[in-house]
Amino acid sequence: MKHYPIIALIAGAILLTGCEAKKASHPCLTLTQADAQQMQKSLGKYPVFDKSYAYAQAAADSAIAHGMDVPVPHDAAGGYTHEQHKNNYYAMYYAGILYQVTGEARYATFVRDMLHAYADLYPTLGMHPYKGSPVPGKLFWQTLNESVWLLHTIQAYDCVYETIEPSEREYIEANLLFPVCDFIEKGTQANYDTFNRMHNHATWANAAVGMTGYVTGNRELVDKALYGSAKDGSAGFLKQLNELFSPDGYFTEGAYYLRYAIWPFMLFAQAIEQNEPELKIFERRDGILLKAVNALLQQAYNGTIIRANDALKKTYSTQEIVCAVDIAYWAGRDAELLDIAEQQGSFVLSSAGIATARAIAEGKKKDFCFKSTLFHDGADGDKGGVAIIRRGEGNKQLMLVMKATAHGLSHGHYDKLTLSLYDNGHEILTDYGAARFLNIESKSGGRYTPENDTYAMQTVAHNTLVADQESHFKGDYNTSMQYASRICYADLNDTCSVVAAEDKNAYRDKDISMRRTIAVLQPQGTEYPMTIDIVRATSPSAHTYDLPFHYNGHLINSSFDSRRETCSLRPMAGGYGYEHLWKECEREVESENVWFTILEDDRFYSVTTALGTGKVYLTRSGANDPNMNLRSEPAVIFRKEGLSDYTFASVIEPHGLFDPNLELTKGANAPTEKVEVVYDGEDYTAVQIAIHGRELPVLFIAVNAAEEGKEEHRLSLNGKTYNWTGNYYVQQ
Amino acid sequence: MKHYPIIALIAGAILLTGCEAKKASHPCLTLTQADAQQMQKSLGKYPVFDKSYAYAQAAADSAIAHGMDVPVPHDAAGGYTHEQHKNNYYAMYYAGILYQVTGEARYATFVRDMLHAYADLYPTLGMHPYKGSPVPGKLFWQTLNESVWLLHTIQAYDCVYETIEPSEREYIEANLLFPVCDFIEKGTQANYDTFNRMHNHATWANAAVGMTGYVTGNRELVDKALYGSAKDGSAGFLKQLNELFSPDGYFTEGAYYLRYAIWPFMLFAQAIEQNEPELKIFERRDGILLKAVNALLQQAYNGTIIRANDALKKTYSTQEIVCAVDIAYWAGRDAELLDIAEQQGSFVLSSAGIATARAIAEGKKKDFCFKSTLFHDGADGDKGGVAIIRRGEGNKQLMLVMKATAHGLSHGHYDKLTLSLYDNGHEILTDYGAARFLNIESKSGGRYTPENDTYAMQTVAHNTLVADQESHFKGDYNTSMQYASRICYADLNDTCSVVAAEDKNAYRDKDISMRRTIAVLQPQGTEYPMTIDIVRATSPSAHTYDLPFHYNGHLINSSFDSRRETCSLRPMAGGYGYEHLWKECEREVESENVWFTILEDDRFYSVTTALGTGKVYLTRSGANDPNMNLRSEPAVIFRKEGLSDYTFASVIEPHGLFDPNLELTKGANAPTEKVEVVYDGEDYTAVQIAIHGRELPVLFIAVNAAEEGKEEHRLSLNGKTYNWTGNYYVQQ
Repeated sequence: MKHYPIIALIAGAILLTGCEAKKASHPCLTLTQADAQQMQKSLGKYPVFDKSYAYAQAAADSAIAHGMDVPVPHDAAGGYTHEQHKNNYYAMYYAGILYQVTGEARYATFVRDMLHAYADLYPTLGMHPYKGSPVPGKLFWQTLNESVWLLHTIQAYDCVYETIEPSEREYIEANLLFPVCDFIEKGTQANYDTFNRMHNHATWANAAVGMTGYVTGNRELVDKALYGSAKDGSAGFLKQLNELFSPDGYFTEGAYYLRYAIWPFMLFAQAIEQNEPELKIFERRDGILLKAVNALLQQAYNGTIIRANDALKKTYSTQEIVCAVDIAYWAGRDAELLDIAEQQGSFVLSSAGIATARAIAEGKKKDFCFKSTLFHDGADGDKGGVAIIRRGEGNKQLMLVMKATAHGLSHGHYDKLTLSLYDNGHEILTDYGAARFLNIESKSGGRYTPENDTYAMQTVAHNTLVADQESHFKGDYNTSMQYASRICYADLNDTCSVVAAEDKNAYRDKDISMRRTIAVLQPQGTEYPMTIDIVRATSPSAHTYDLPFHYNGHLINSSFDSRRETCSLRPMAGGYGYEHLWKECEREVESENVWFTILEDDRFYSVTTALGTGKVYLTRSGANDPNMNLRSEPAVIFRKEGLSDYTFASVIEPHGLFDPNLELTKGANAPTEKVEVVYDGEDYTAVQIAIHGRELPVLFIAVNAAEEGKEEHRLSLNGKTYNWTGNYYVQQ
Repeated sequence: MKHYPIIALIAGAILLTGCEAKKASHPCLTLTQADAQQMQKSLGKYPVFDKSYAYAQAAADSAIAHGMDVPVPHDAAGGYTHEQHKNNYYAMYYAGILYQVTGEARYATFVRDMLHAYADLYPTLGMHPYKGSPVPGKLFWQTLNESVWLLHTIQAYDCVYETIEPSEREYIEANLLFPVCDFIEKGTQANYDTFNRMHNHATWANAAVGMTGYVTGNRELVDKALYGSAKDGSAGFLKQLNELFSPDGYFTEGAYYLRYAIWPFMLFAQAIEQNEPELKIFERRDGILLKAVNALLQQAYNGTIIRANDALKKTYSTQEIVCAVDIAYWAGRDAELLDIAEQQGSFVLSSAGIATARAIAEGKKKDFCFKSTLFHDGADGDKGGVAIIRRGEGNKQLMLVMKATAHGLSHGHYDKLTLSLYDNGHEILTDYGAARFLNIESKSGGRYTPENDTYAMQTVAHNTLVADQESHFKGDYNTSMQYASRICYADLNDTCSVVAAEDKNAYRDKDISMRRTIAVLQPQGTEYPMTIDIVRATSPSAHTYDLPFHYNGHLINSSFDSRRETCSLRPMAGGYGYEHLWKECEREVESENVWFTILEDDRFYSVTTALGTGKVYLTRSGANDPNMNLRSEPAVIFRKEGLSDYTFASVIEPHGLFDPNLELTKGANAPTEKVEVVYDGEDYTAVQIAIHGRELPVLFIAVNAAEEGKEEHRLSLNGKTYNWTGNYYVQQ
């Protein structure tokens, strides 16, 4: 036994005395002996499951063949020691499973020996030499990775537990597992604070520590994991279930981080279900965990999680979503999940995975139903929400997202009432997402780059209103965390899907109220659904209002003189992200409508906006970005100056066909001929849209005040009186 | 009968008197009655063929349902009348086939009535009102489209010929078909010149006129098509077979325009084979047409034609390649073509298509063999060539292209010795291709934009040597047309594929000789093939040498200080395309090697170059491009100043893995540690490459003089003497 610091010894001793819970038979977390046997018998029966198994086997065998490498921690994310410690926990995890399925001793020996090597190393470690995290770790530069390491490692230990001599177990637990738990829970003040926060990093920490408690029979660890360090429910996993999700299953940090958080949520939940079924963990809050998995799957386009907040591009096939879907099926037997599992093409090698694979093979699958949905934010569902509107079927369907939520913790953006459009398999009106090169060491050590704060989070990087070129809440996190937008109403029926949201806080210093009403409808005679987008700003004082449209595609036509700067590019003025936009064109316009058309893949998209006298900018991200941390992406910004109130009314519409193989172009011009705000007041906003080749215009009247959806309304326009009941009137 | 101009009447009358050939039974071009019957019987048997048939049926039925619309020509490409006349020829073409297969009179009537409407209209037309082509048309803005129109229309007429009353046939032939032929052949001086050129526009014209001759029994037209207006073989289709292809089947305009030209080549060849089998058209020049189809298919990556010259992105599934592959199979029964036909997923509805579909159904398919190949350019194969080097299988394979050809007519670029790299399913080192938005009317009427000349064609838009920031031949077409590069040797074996080419003309005014030697090999212990790239410039006088690497991906690391301009961007100086490059970074470097690493998809790519003291630029296309006609694409340019001779030696290599779903990064640093030119002379260039983790460096010695491949060579380096036979020595 090597020497290790006194503190760890004491901590280990204290924890050991906490061993009062009954020792479960092993494995006891995510795999049972019975399911391992079932897995063994099933090999060759479910080809996709076999593929996952073969992957695990190859990974374990390769790790065994390469020999042990447990290096002294040195590198940041993406660097050698970081990646090696990740490789190690995967290797142990897979080898543990392989031992359970095959019974081959070499897998168990590998796990035991590596655990021993870690038990030798861990007590010798100080804090990680790479300083880059507010919550630094020992094996990794941040404690978060240490939790992830433990969550995998404890599953491996669970799998081989019964093969290890008691004295060796004691060595491993006393020198490695308990000290790691102790470090994660309270090794530093930052760790303690994290362990007891309402945040996904806490979920990881709780799950890893709690699962270690189950395996080692250490009730103290389980209680801290479930109820927080104080073991009184003031923190911990169960409180997170109440606080981090809205009643709809929306996760406060948004879909991208739900993808990550769902992993420990579901794994720990499965372990709880196996060890303490009396907690009925999957039934808590009306089945909140299963709702969360559904909400995650719904907040995606073609299997890619939507870009909102600090999102990178991630698909359903990430291991964490595979794991979540399998466990959700295991827990709830929702046959629609089998559709997703089949598309994922891999399974978690656990009781959940084998149950899911078997159910698919037995033909139990139902089509997963993607539908227009409003997800409320906030533990009580009163912190705004995300509306997702879908039209059409399959991977070419149109999907519109309006986000009007609370800030969403540290990964949130200043993006109140922002809008994104997906269509024909592509992002069209884009959310920049995160400025980060995950695990690329040369790019800020794989962490968020500085431009994540200075650009990606700022309001101008989103398709929403910017006043006076300042971000919502002036980009102040603490202020933004205090307020949420409000969903006024949503009626997502298939004929006309309408959602309205407002925000009176983002510019409270300027006393600006913002309200955005979006309607997706398909007027007779048009080929694709159009989106009517009404952005209404009111204030007692005059402001400059900017409305950016970030797009993916190539600008091919516009109503305005879009000639770009030819010989010199300068950034847009000022801060709040504007300094990151090269100003390619600045043009004063003076006509009823401005429009632009882009081409992406084989379809055109036009945005037509009632602007009157104003300015138009063409921009491209990349200014004041010396390290090329930003992608080079274009936007069009519409600007109105010196007005207290202004309502931007736009039509956003796909149209036509560009087929380079057939050399065929159809409908390159937008169906919309003219967008006109025919009435605008505190009570109503009425927008009339003339469509080429149609006599009757489309008329949409949004109610700006009442929200019950049952009130009767009346508005006279051009001598005609419109009467209706509900939040909007539409004449398609 | 409407009035039409006297000239057309006379022309028609003259042509009519030329009717001396025997009238064939109809249809007689690409479909026989027997094959139409076979097609009818086969419906329901070959699902993919059924799909093509269903497409044709839907197109014909929809056209019939919509009614006749034969507008007076007005619009440019992409505009209404342009697209309508295209729709019309497709509608007639499909309806003609449908008539042959179903025997339903309504299809024949539709074709007849539309032909009649065109016969009414055509004589009333002057030149097309949109002026944008040096060879303007009447129905379309350029005569080329008129030829394409006729080529489809004559097939439709052929299909319904026997259903039309003789007097009606006479009306159609006298007022439409013969006048169109006459106009195409000699309606203007430009048309006459085109008809008798060695160029793909002539192929279209010849094919359309010749096929009209067969159908109408007008031998005069056939003879002009085959032998030129003078009917003496000084021009025409047969001469094109001799002059436009190299003995390998390489087409002088490159693969992208071969894709387009192959359509009339193969269709007319099939018509010739049907009508004059004694010409043995498919056996000419040792089967040059079948070789051409093979060369076209080989010059593609994952089914997308390589970007060289004025190329846009086009795939195997274009109708012209479908047609060419089917006819090639029909003519030569090469079972490998069935593999491509199956991937295309559609068939031409002709004798060729049904033969191909049947053969696939009968299981005759063999895998198409993509292989490393050198295609010589020039009618005699002595005008340089294109080398394609492949490694690995399937759609992730690596493919390297070196282009060292003649200019290639009007769509050629000033790109001597340029290199492109494809890997892992993506373009990595890119050729800009064409600056054009095909059929997008708002973009220069769908034609090439001005930036095609000023940027896309210029040398700096390619991955090849630029001297003194001037393009090859100073961008002068007539000069460039006089010279070709020279392939020195090529040895494309799978262990080490080497190709060397030189050009002594591109900078003849500067007396610069350029030689590029490329070797693709996979040293022991590396994961992917590396490319050794030696660019050797020699001159009696001092010059500035630039070597650009245009890339697709995101720059993530570099050996040099790559901090970009933050507050002001200016174009690179001067012309020759440099004015279109924003200068994002200009850096003096002084170290043995410079390198940069990019990330594209899930793989890294590094270029490591022995530069010594020099400059490095980061650029992005889009400067001096007011109309946003260029894509925004990045490049790295290495520069050496004030030297008469310089040899750029680089290693280009894929490496590592970036898996965002697994959050896994491996091998983000290039395997290559150092690239060193250890010897450089008129006789040899020796490059030594140190590889991380390997003791023995890779040594590659290129012979710069001898070319027979049999000579014995000797070179002493660092006290060791290397003896070898052949054009290169390699120690992997």
